[in-house]
Amino acid sequence: MIPRYSRPDMVAIWEPQTRFRIWFEIEAHACDAQAALGVIPKANAEAVWKAKDVTFNVARIDEIEAVTKHDVIAFLTHLAEIIGNDEARFVHQGMTSSDVLDTTLNIQLTRAADLLMAGLDRVLAALKTRAYEHKDTVRIGRSHGIHAEPTTMGLTFARFYAEMARNRARLENARAEIATGAISGAVGTFANIDPAVEEHVCKMMGLTPEPISTQVIPRDRHAMFFATLGVIASSIENIAIEIRHMQRTEVLEAEEFFSPGQKGSSAMPHKRNPVLTENLTGLARLVRMSVTPALENVALWHERDISHSSVERAIGPDTTITLDFALHRLAGVVEKLVIYPENMLKNMNKFKGLIMSQRVLLALTQAGVSREDSYRLVQRNAMKVWEQGADFKTELLADPEVTAALSREEIEEKFDLGYHTKHVDTIFARVFGS
Amino acid sequence: MIPRYSRPDMVAIWEPQTRFRIWFEIEAHACDAQAALGVIPKANAEAVWKAKDVTFNVARIDEIEAVTKHDVIAFLTHLAEIIGNDEARFVHQGMTSSDVLDTTLNIQLTRAADLLMAGLDRVLAALKTRAYEHKDTVRIGRSHGIHAEPTTMGLTFARFYAEMARNRARLENARAEIATGAISGAVGTFANIDPAVEEHVCKMMGLTPEPISTQVIPRDRHAMFFATLGVIASSIENIAIEIRHMQRTEVLEAEEFFSPGQKGSSAMPHKRNPVLTENLTGLARLVRMSVTPALENVALWHERDISHSSVERAIGPDTTITLDFALHRLAGVVEKLVIYPENMLKNMNKFKGLIMSQRVLLALTQAGVSREDSYRLVQRNAMKVWEQGADFKTELLADPEVTAALSREEIEEKFDLGYHTKHVDTIFARVFGS
Amino acid sequence: MIPRYSRPDMVAIWEPQTRFRIWFEIEAHACDAQAALGVIPKANAEAVWKAKDVTFNVARIDEIEAVTKHDVIAFLTHLAEIIGNDEARFVHQGMTSSDVLDTTLNIQLTRAADLLMAGLDRVLAALKTRAYEHKDTVRIGRSHGIHAEPTTMGLTFARFYAEMARNRARLENARAEIATGAISGAVGTFANIDPAVEEHVCKMMGLTPEPISTQVIPRDRHAMFFATLGVIASSIENIAIEIRHMQRTEVLEAEEFFSPGQKGSSAMPHKRNPVLTENLTGLARLVRMSVTPALENVALWHERDISHSSVERAIGPDTTITLDFALHRLAGVVEKLVIYPENMLKNMNKFKGLIMSQRVLLALTQAGVSREDSYRLVQRNAMKVWEQGADFKTELLADPEVTAALSREEIEEKFDLGYHTKHVDTIFARVFGS
Amino acid sequence: MIPRYSRPDMVAIWEPQTRFRIWFEIEAHACDAQAALGVIPKANAEAVWKAKDVTFNVARIDEIEAVTKHDVIAFLTHLAEIIGNDEARFVHQGMTSSDVLDTTLNIQLTRAADLLMAGLDRVLAALKTRAYEHKDTVRIGRSHGIHAEPTTMGLTFARFYAEMARNRARLENARAEIATGAISGAVGTFANIDPAVEEHVCKMMGLTPEPISTQVIPRDRHAMFFATLGVIASSIENIAIEIRHMQRTEVLEAEEFFSPGQKGSSAMPHKRNPVLTENLTGLARLVRMSVTPALENVALWHERDISHSSVERAIGPDTTITLDFALHRLAGVVEKLVIYPENMLKNMNKFKGLIMSQRVLLALTQAGVSREDSYRLVQRNAMKVWEQGADFKTELLADPEVTAALSREEIEEKFDLGYHTKHVDTIFARVFGS
Repeated sequence: MIPRYSRPDMVAIWEPQTRFRIWFEIEAHACDAQAALGVIPKANAEAVWKAKDVTFNVARIDEIEAVTKHDVIAFLTHLAEIIGNDEARFVHQGMTSSDVLDTTLNIQLTRAADLLMAGLDRVLAALKTRAYEHKDTVRIGRSHGIHAEPTTMGLTFARFYAEMARNRARLENARAEIATGAISGAVGTFANIDPAVEEHVCKMMGLTPEPISTQVIPRDRHAMFFATLGVIASSIENIAIEIRHMQRTEVLEAEEFFSPGQKGSSAMPHKRNPVLTENLTGLARLVRMSVTPALENVALWHERDISHSSVERAIGPDTTITLDFALHRLAGVVEKLVIYPENMLKNMNKFKGLIMSQRVLLALTQAGVSREDSYRLVQRNAMKVWEQGADFKTELLADPEVTAALSREEIEEKFDLGYHTKHVDTIFARVFGS
Repeated sequence: MIPRYSRPDMVAIWEPQTRFRIWFEIEAHACDAQAALGVIPKANAEAVWKAKDVTFNVARIDEIEAVTKHDVIAFLTHLAEIIGNDEARFVHQGMTSSDVLDTTLNIQLTRAADLLMAGLDRVLAALKTRAYEHKDTVRIGRSHGIHAEPTTMGLTFARFYAEMARNRARLENARAEIATGAISGAVGTFANIDPAVEEHVCKMMGLTPEPISTQVIPRDRHAMFFATLGVIASSIENIAIEIRHMQRTEVLEAEEFFSPGQKGSSAMPHKRNPVLTENLTGLARLVRMSVTPALENVALWHERDISHSSVERAIGPDTTITLDFALHRLAGVVEKLVIYPENMLKNMNKFKGLIMSQRVLLALTQAGVSREDSYRLVQRNAMKVWEQGADFKTELLADPEVTAALSREEIEEKFDLGYHTKHVDTIFARVFGS
Repeated sequence: MIPRYSRPDMVAIWEPQTRFRIWFEIEAHACDAQAALGVIPKANAEAVWKAKDVTFNVARIDEIEAVTKHDVIAFLTHLAEIIGNDEARFVHQGMTSSDVLDTTLNIQLTRAADLLMAGLDRVLAALKTRAYEHKDTVRIGRSHGIHAEPTTMGLTFARFYAEMARNRARLENARAEIATGAISGAVGTFANIDPAVEEHVCKMMGLTPEPISTQVIPRDRHAMFFATLGVIASSIENIAIEIRHMQRTEVLEAEEFFSPGQKGSSAMPHKRNPVLTENLTGLARLVRMSVTPALENVALWHERDISHSSVERAIGPDTTITLDFALHRLAGVVEKLVIYPENMLKNMNKFKGLIMSQRVLLALTQAGVSREDSYRLVQRNAMKVWEQGADFKTELLADPEVTAALSREEIEEKFDLGYHTKHVDTIFARVFGS
Repeated sequence: MIPRYSRPDMVAIWEPQTRFRIWFEIEAHACDAQAALGVIPKANAEAVWKAKDVTFNVARIDEIEAVTKHDVIAFLTHLAEIIGNDEARFVHQGMTSSDVLDTTLNIQLTRAADLLMAGLDRVLAALKTRAYEHKDTVRIGRSHGIHAEPTTMGLTFARFYAEMARNRARLENARAEIATGAISGAVGTFANIDPAVEEHVCKMMGLTPEPISTQVIPRDRHAMFFATLGVIASSIENIAIEIRHMQRTEVLEAEEFFSPGQKGSSAMPHKRNPVLTENLTGLARLVRMSVTPALENVALWHERDISHSSVERAIGPDTTITLDFALHRLAGVVEKLVIYPENMLKNMNKFKGLIMSQRVLLALTQAGVSREDSYRLVQRNAMKVWEQGADFKTELLADPEVTAALSREEIEEKFDLGYHTKHVDTIFARVFGS
C-alpha cells in the first residue's frame, strides 16, 4: 500500500483494529450458537459480549504474539484479559484458526467490494452528467488515431458509462463470490463443531455459509474476485488513455482540471500535464498484477497449504486500496474535466471537409456516375484539400463534373453534421434508459 | 492451437468455412432488415439466400484476398460470384467490415462457450458420480501435506464438484458478456445504417444488440470472458494437482486409468505416470496466459485501434480449444480414476493412531486433568509411536495415568472414524441438493 | 502460430522434418561416441549415417506413432526401416527419450535465437540509417504528451537504436542460457551412459553440456529465455506506440509507407491508418504472454514432471515465430517510414514560441529581475499567445519592461533552436560510437 | 511491503531518509561538476557539503511538500534551510526533477541488487555445504512423482546450487542493466546542462552515464531487472516445492527445522508443517507479479509519461524486499533442513527392488533371451512384488528360467546402488569445480 494512493476508508478495513474487531464478532457469535446448542454455558457466551465496545490493544496483542508465535491465540489471550479467564474458557471451542481467518478475509473483501461499489457509483454519476452535458458536442470519431466520421463527446462519455455499468454488475457478482464464511474445522468435516454454528455466525456477519470447505474457503472464489478487479482496472485505463489523448498538445480537446492558483500554469499555459490520468494508467497495471498470483493460489495441496496466505496479505489490501483510490481519482477527473468544444470543431476541420469524402463518393455512384469516375472526381478534389489546403465543399461545388451529378443541396447535405448525430438519442436511451 | 490438444467440434468453430458461413448469415439478415426498411429492394435481399446451402470456396476467397488485400471484400466478391453481381449489389450496404467481424467473433466465442459448458457438464457429472461412489471412503485429510484429520474421498470429489459448479455459473455470465452484436458503422453512430438492422441481425443470430459500440464492440467484455476461462483453468489445475499427489509412489491412493494392454505397465507395475493430469497442469497455464493480453486489449485508442486483433486471432481459438480439450481430458480422468481405498487406510494409519492425539489431549483436559499433565501424558505415548512404531491406542490403554482419567470406552471412542464422517450427508446435501 | 504473422525460416525450425533431422543427428553422434568408448560396434555407428541425406517420411512416422503411442520410438522404428533393423539395433542405447527431446528443444530455441538476432540486426540497421538521416531534423520533445523542449527526430531513432542494441546483448545472453544439451539418463545420473557421449553430442551440435540435469534440462533457463523475448517485445511496442502517435491526424509527423497504388489512399488521403504498428502493439502482447507460463514451468516435481511440455509445445514455436515476424515488420516500417519535417516544425510552433517561456523566465531572473516580476512579465505575454494566438517573441520584443531587462539579441537567442541541438553529436557518439 | 516478510537492510534502502541522502549526494556532486565547468561559483559548490553529515528532517520536508506539492522542491527548500539560502541558490541549476529521481531509483535498485546478491551467496553456500554432506546419501529419483532410478540427495542440492549460480550471473547482468544515471534535462538534450555533469555525478555514485535518455532513463532496463527477479523467484519456488514434497507425511525424507521447545511438536510429532517453504511458494508469486507491469512500463509516450511511476513506487520496494526476505528464509531452511537418510532408503525399497526391473529386463535380453521372454520373466516376478509384497531379487533368484540366463552374481549386480552413483563425483566437479 502506498499512502499517497490510498483513501482512509479502505485503509481502515485492513487495519489490525478492524481485523481484531471482526475476529471478536465471529468468536462471540460462535459462542452464542454453541450456547444455543447446549455445548457451552449460556453465561459464558454472554460474558464474551463484555468486550463489545472495547478497543483492542493492538500493541498488547503483538506482545503476546511475540511469545506464542500465533496470532489467533494471542488475540484470544488478550480477550481473556478483558472478559476474564474463566469467562473466556469456552471461546473458540471446536474451531480452528482458519475458521476465523478465512471468514475474516472474506468479510474484509466484502466490505472492500462495498466501498469499490461506491467508487464505481461516483464514476458512473460523473460520466452520466458529463454525457448529457455534451450529448450534442460534436467531435471527430477516430479509428486508428485517424479522423473517421463525426460523433459526439456525449457518446464518448456514454460508452464509458456503459462499460462502467457492466463493471458494476461484475463487481456485484464478485462480491457474492467472496461473501461466504466457514466454521468447519481442521479439514472441513465439522467433526468438532456443529454446522449450526457456521450458519449462525454467517447469518450475523452477512455471509453465506460455504457449502463445502476444507479448513480453507476455496480459492477459486478469490481468483474470480481479483480477476474482476483486474477488468475494472483495465476500464479505468481505457478512460485514462482517452483523456491523455484529448489533452495532448496537438489535440487539446480536454484538460484535467487545474486550480487557478496552480503555479506555473499561466506562465507556461501550454504545459498542463495529464498527470492524474497517467497515474491512473500506472495504477491500473498495479491492480491487474494481482490477477495472476490470485489464479496461481487456486491449486492448494490437498485440504490446504498456506502458500496463498502471503499472497493475500499483499494483494488483499494493496489491490483494493489502489483500485478504490483509482476510482475516486477517476471520478474527480471526469467531474472536473475541462472540455474544449471549439477545439473539437477545429480538429474536425483540420482537413477542410475531407472526412466527408466517402459520403460524396457514395452519393456520386448513387447518382449514376460510374465507380471509376466517381473515384476520380472525389480524388482530384480531395488532393487539392490535402496538398493545397483548399476547402473540400468549395472545390466540389466548383467542379462542373460534380455539379452535373449532384445539386448544390445534395452536396451541402453531405456536409451536414446532423446526419451523423441523428441516432444519438436512440443510443442514449439504450445506455441510460429512457 | 496444438492438434494433439484439440477436439474437432471446437476446432470447427474457428475454421474459415464457419467464419464465412457466419459472415454470410449476418449479411443476409442485414439485407432482409434493409429491405424491410425499404432501403434496398426485397428481391435483392431474397436473392442473397441463394447461397444458403452453398459451401464457400475458401481457396477462391483467399485468391481474391491476395489481390484486394481485404478479407471482407474478398468474401463479398466471392458471394457475388455465387448469387450474381447484380443481385449482390446491395449486400453490405451501409455497413463497415468491423460490423461483420466483431459480431462474428462474438458468435464464435458464444458457440465456444456453449461447448465449454458441455465440457463442464461432463466434468460435473463425473465428479458427482465418483463423489457418491466414495462418499464414505475414509482417507486422511491433509493440511500442509501433513496428516491432519480423517475425511472421505467423497468429500474431495464433492468440493471439486462445488468448485466446478461455480465455474459453470461464471461461464454463463461470461457467455452473456460476449453474446452481443453490433451493426453500427464506422464510429458507431448508425449514420449510414438504421439501428433496426442491428436489432434484426442480432435477434436472428441469437445475440443482444451492443448498447453502444464504436466500430468495435467494447473489449472489457472479452477481457471478462478470458479472465473467466483463466479461473476455470485454475480449477482444472487444482483437481490435477490433487490427483498427481494421490498417484505419487508413496501415496498411491489413486491412479489414472491404464488400459490393460498398455505396454510396460506389468513389467514395471510401479511406473505408471500421471501424465494426463501433469498435462492438464500445463494446459491450465496455457489457458491462463490469455488473461493478461485480454486485459491489455481493453484500452483502445479513441473509437478503435486494431491492436486487439492479432491478440484475438491467437487467443480466440487457442484458449477455447485448449480449455475444451482440458475439460474433456479431465472428465475422462475423473470418470476412470482407479481408487485404492485400502491404501487410503494404510496411509492414514502410517503413524498408528497418532492423528487422534489431539482428540485424546482434549478428552484428558475435559476429564479434569490439568493442561500440563494432559500434554505430558499424550506426549510420552505419542513418542513411542513416533520413535518405536508402537500403536497409539494400545499404549494409551496400557498407561495407568491415562486410564485413571479415561475409561477404555472413552479411549476407544476417540479412535472412532464415525466421529469425523458424521456430517458427510449434511455436506453432500449442501453441495448436491437433498 | 498464425500464418499471417509468420516467416518461413522460423516456421521451418519447428516443422516435424526439422525435428526428426535433429533427432537423427543426436542419435548418430551418440552412436559415434558409444563406438569410440567401445560400447557398441563401430560398424553399427557408421551404418546410422546412411540416413544422413534422407528426407524422413513424416506420415510414416505418424503412422507408427499411432500404434506405439510414443514419438521417439516411432522415429527409431522408421530409422531402422531406412538403415536396416540389424544395423539400427544399438541406436539410442542407454538413452532416454528426454535426452533427445530436451536437447532438441534447446537446439531449436538456439536456432530461433539466431534468426531473432538477424531480425534485431535488421531493425538496428534501419534505426541507425534513419537516425543519421534525421540527426538534425528538429521536432518538439514531449513529456506527458505535452510540448516540452525541442529535440531531433534523429535522437528519437537513436534512443530506439540504443534500446534495441541492449536487446541484442540480452538476446545473446538468452541464447547462451538455452544452448545446452543433456544425455544423462532417466534421472540424470549417467547410470546407463557415459558422460563422454553427452560431451561429444553437444560438441557436434554446437551446445554446452548441461552441468547437471535430471532427465530434463532445468527450466530456469527457458524461463530466462522467454522473459528476455518479453522484454524485446516491450521495446517493439515502445517504438510502435511512438509511430502511432506520430501518425495520428493531429500530429502527422510521420506515416507508415503507403504504396502509391494502395486503393483509397488518394480519395481519402487523410485516412492512412498505422495498421502495421497497431499490429505490432498486439504482437508484443502475444510475445509477452509467454513469460508467465515459462516462469511457472520452473518448479517441476522432483527430478521432473511433464507439466512444462504442453506449455513449450505452444510457446516454443508461437513466441519465436511471432517475435521474428514482428522484428521484420518493425524493420520494414522503420526503413520506409515517411517523415514530415515540415509538420514537425508546424507542430512545434503551434503555440507560437511558447515552449521557450521557461528560457525567457530564467533569462529575466539572471538579468536581475525579481522572481515575481519575471514571472509576471512572462505570464502576461504568454497569455496573449495562449488566448489570442499572438507570437511570443514579437510580444516580448514589444514589451518595454522585458526589453528593459533583455536586449533584442538576448531575446532572439532564447528562440534559437541550436541551443537545444548543440549536444546531438555528443549523444550520437555515445550511441553509435565515434 | 509486509513487515513480517522484510529485512531491515533492504527496507532501509527504500526509506525517505535514504532517498533524501541520495538526492543530496547527486545535487552536491552536480554542484562540484558545475563549479569545475565554471558555471557556478566554487564556494557555492563547497557550501553544499555542509549538509554532508546532516540527518534530513523528513517531517519538515513533508511539511514543505504539503505546500509546494513537489517533492524535489520541498527537499531543496529544506536543504537551503540547512546550508543557507544564499549558498544554496545554485543547487539543482540546469537540472530537472527527473534527473534526480531517475538516477536515485537506479541507485536504490543497484543497492538492492547488491543485497540480493548477498542473499544468493548465502543460499549458494548453504546448498553447497548440504550437497557435499549428502553427496552419497542415496534416495530414489522420481519422474512424474513416481519412483524411477536411484540418485543422491547431494545431487539434488547440487542441481539447486547450479540453478542458483545461474541466477547469480543473471542478477549481475540485471544489476548492470540498472546501474546507470542521467542528468540530461527536460527531454534529454543537455540543453541546460553540460554532459560533463552527468559524467561526474555518475562516476561518484558508482553508475554509468545513460548513453541516451529523455528526461527518463529508458524502462526496458527496469523491465529486464524485474524479469530477472521473477526468474530467481521461480527458482526459489522450485526448491520450496521439493522440500514440501520431502516433508509430506508419506515421504518424510526431510523436515524444516523445528526448535525443540516449539509447542505441540512432541504431542503431535507427525504434525510438523513445512510452513516456511509454503510461504516461499507464495512469496515467489508476489515477486513474479511485478514482471508484467514492469514490461508494460516500457512503452512510454514520446519522451516520457509518468505512468511508470506509481508502478515503481510499489514494485521497487515491494519486490526487492520480498525477494531479499525470501532468499534469506530459503537459506535458513536449507542450512537447517533435517534430513532422514533412513527414510530415503525405506521409501526407495517400498516396492522391494522393483525399481531395478528395467535393468534386469535389459540384462536378460543382453544374455540372449528373446525380448518377449525377457518381458514375461520380469513381469511374472514383478507382479509377485506388486501384488504380494514379495522381494524382487529373491523371486528372481528363485526363478529357474531367470537363473538359467543370469548368474547369481549378475542378478546381484543389478541391485547394486553403486551402479547409479558412479558418476556423482563427475557431476560435482562440473557443478562446483574440481
